[in-house]
Amino acid sequence: MGTWDTKPSFVRSDWPLIDCDIHNTVPSLETLYPYLPDYWCDYCRESAFGGPEMGDYPKGAATTALPDTTPPSDGPAGSDLELLRDQTLDFWEAEYGLLTCAYRVQTVHNEDLAATLASATNDWQVEHWLEPEPRLRASLVVPSQNPPLAAREIERLGNHPGFVQVTLPVRSLIPYGNRHYDPIYEAAVRHNLAIGIQYGGAPGIPPSPSGWFSTYLEEYAGMGQVFQAQVISLVAEGAFDRFPDLRVALIEGGFTWMPSVMWRIDKEWRGLRHNTPWVKRLPSEYMREHMRLTLQPMDAPPEPKELLRMIGQLDSDEMLMFSTDYPHWQFDSPEEALPIGLPESLTKKILAENARAFYRL
Amino acid sequence: MGTWDTKPSFVRSDWPLIDCDIHNTVPSLETLYPYLPDYWCDYCRESAFGGPEMGDYPKGAATTALPDTTPPSDGPAGSDLELLRDQTLDFWEAEYGLLTCAYRVQTVHNEDLAATLASATNDWQVEHWLEPEPRLRASLVVPSQNPPLAAREIERLGNHPGFVQVTLPVRSLIPYGNRHYDPIYEAAVRHNLAIGIQYGGAPGIPPSPSGWFSTYLEEYAGMGQVFQAQVISLVAEGAFDRFPDLRVALIEGGFTWMPSVMWRIDKEWRGLRHNTPWVKRLPSEYMREHMRLTLQPMDAPPEPKELLRMIGQLDSDEMLMFSTDYPHWQFDSPEEALPIGLPESLTKKILAENARAFYRL
Repeated sequence: MGTWDTKPSFVRSDWPLIDCDIHNTVPSLETLYPYLPDYWCDYCRESAFGGPEMGDYPKGAATTALPDTTPPSDGPAGSDLELLRDQTLDFWEAEYGLLTCAYRVQTVHNEDLAATLASATNDWQVEHWLEPEPRLRASLVVPSQNPPLAAREIERLGNHPGFVQVTLPVRSLIPYGNRHYDPIYEAAVRHNLAIGIQYGGAPGIPPSPSGWFSTYLEEYAGMGQVFQAQVISLVAEGAFDRFPDLRVALIEGGFTWMPSVMWRIDKEWRGLRHNTPWVKRLPSEYMREHMRLTLQPMDAPPEPKELLRMIGQLDSDEMLMFSTDYPHWQFDSPEEALPIGLPESLTKKILAENARAFYRL
Repeated sequence: MGTWDTKPSFVRSDWPLIDCDIHNTVPSLETLYPYLPDYWCDYCRESAFGGPEMGDYPKGAATTALPDTTPPSDGPAGSDLELLRDQTLDFWEAEYGLLTCAYRVQTVHNEDLAATLASATNDWQVEHWLEPEPRLRASLVVPSQNPPLAAREIERLGNHPGFVQVTLPVRSLIPYGNRHYDPIYEAAVRHNLAIGIQYGGAPGIPPSPSGWFSTYLEEYAGMGQVFQAQVISLVAEGAFDRFPDLRVALIEGGFTWMPSVMWRIDKEWRGLRHNTPWVKRLPSEYMREHMRLTLQPMDAPPEPKELLRMIGQLDSDEMLMFSTDYPHWQFDSPEEALPIGLPESLTKKILAENARAFYRL
């Protein structure tokens, strides 16, 4: 039986559903040529540049693509609107689908090339995704390795009603709480955009605080630690104090580590708060107010009862947002996309209400 | 009222107690001169070398030293046997106290100097700590940046009955699952020693996978992520498959993140296990069998009920070991050193039985 044969029981006409993590994929560098200035087209054609580093999802890894997601064009999974529409918006009967393009312009050392690739990617998103499909919303790709250039891109397109978020790869050379990134946050807040920090990236430093892992399993399972570091940095370095309207979605990073991080930093903050006088409240209060987490991949305990307890430990019904992480392979049966046994009110919040409020849809 | 005025209720003559994390502190580089060969004494005296990098516990930070732990000699907290004996072994009526010396020879780039400093530190531990106080056990300090030199030190002193563990700083340049470290594990296992991975270190790479934090609060609260990376590396890279008798204590790293790491890596292992064909069982099974965690600092939820649930999520009564983390300041009242409301059988395991079995005392 194929993945798409049976509708899960939580797809109901009276329960709106918003999928907060659908990866639309740039098929190839050549796809962007029509959107690039001549100079950069020539540069790409004449140099050895093959496009950004895209190793986050190796083609053959079991996690990379659900069965049957390769389009008829034979392009990469997630690159074809028709198929993506069938398998996400239509299948889940979604009110909205939020595109989280992971084209890694942040890995390009030539920052002007990175900026022009970001603009091309965003223009391609408008033409090929947002204009033909009104249920889609999208994430602005920005050259976050150079915050002023990233802010310029937000300035250019941030008022387009299809964009609801600016996306950053979770791996970075400098933690995201650092004032280095303020131009990005200032522009995002001014344009009513959330920040979506998503799995992956290739900033040149190891994906672990103890050096380079040897296997993809380690890197994939260990990405939660990178999210934790960013959460701590954002709160402790005062990003939410400098930008009280800043909203941050943590996309594809799991969520069961969140209570432990809250407990630890709240405890240490009591003793070390003189380090960070701008942090006026318990760190966990900032997290509950400003941060949201997407559901997939679920780093969940095997027992549904334990998962419910774990969600209770977040001490908030408003932090989790439904996501499929399409086309990545996170569940075998769509029924598994949502935890079993959630109370109805929480189910409805996770399925749509939390995302609607957070993204102001 | 002083910290040491009231005995906690769990100190009972019928409940043995083992403190698994007591930091004995080398007062100064000069303390080690009597244990150093002339060549290295001259080197230290004549060069600008001031000793290893010891920034893990800044002198003025609230977490660094409990009140009243400065010895009469005015040396650093933890440097005086009499006072340490009063405030740990005698106060807690401990059957054993496990010294976890954090003299960071691993930060010394001259690896021969690091090795000779490690030997001097260990000889000083024998003479000043183990010989005068039979309730103490100690951790071998080794130059782990050079595993063959570290193995040589384990070979030299590993049969001394006072040493029960080899200690490594959690921060490393290469993750601890890498075969690079096999000489250390081979020697430790052969001498019936555990590996004790402890808070801190200064390997030259950032303490976060997203670059350098700005404040000590971030580094202190974020150290749990470094432990998580090492846990993932040790299991995924097959350290326990290569060394079935390898035992690893995670010291001063918290423990409430452990269930989330187990859930995540178990899940991803199902899809990506072809990356690591040597990993024969669920990763969490290796963790429960080979790893133990010390209790302090407790990254615990404010509600005792939630903490009990969290301990239940470990799915093992055998992983936690009592520790005070003396002289670091982790609790105001000794009563807080142990979670409230634990069942008696679990209390006894945490207080002594788990450590007795793990360290083979």
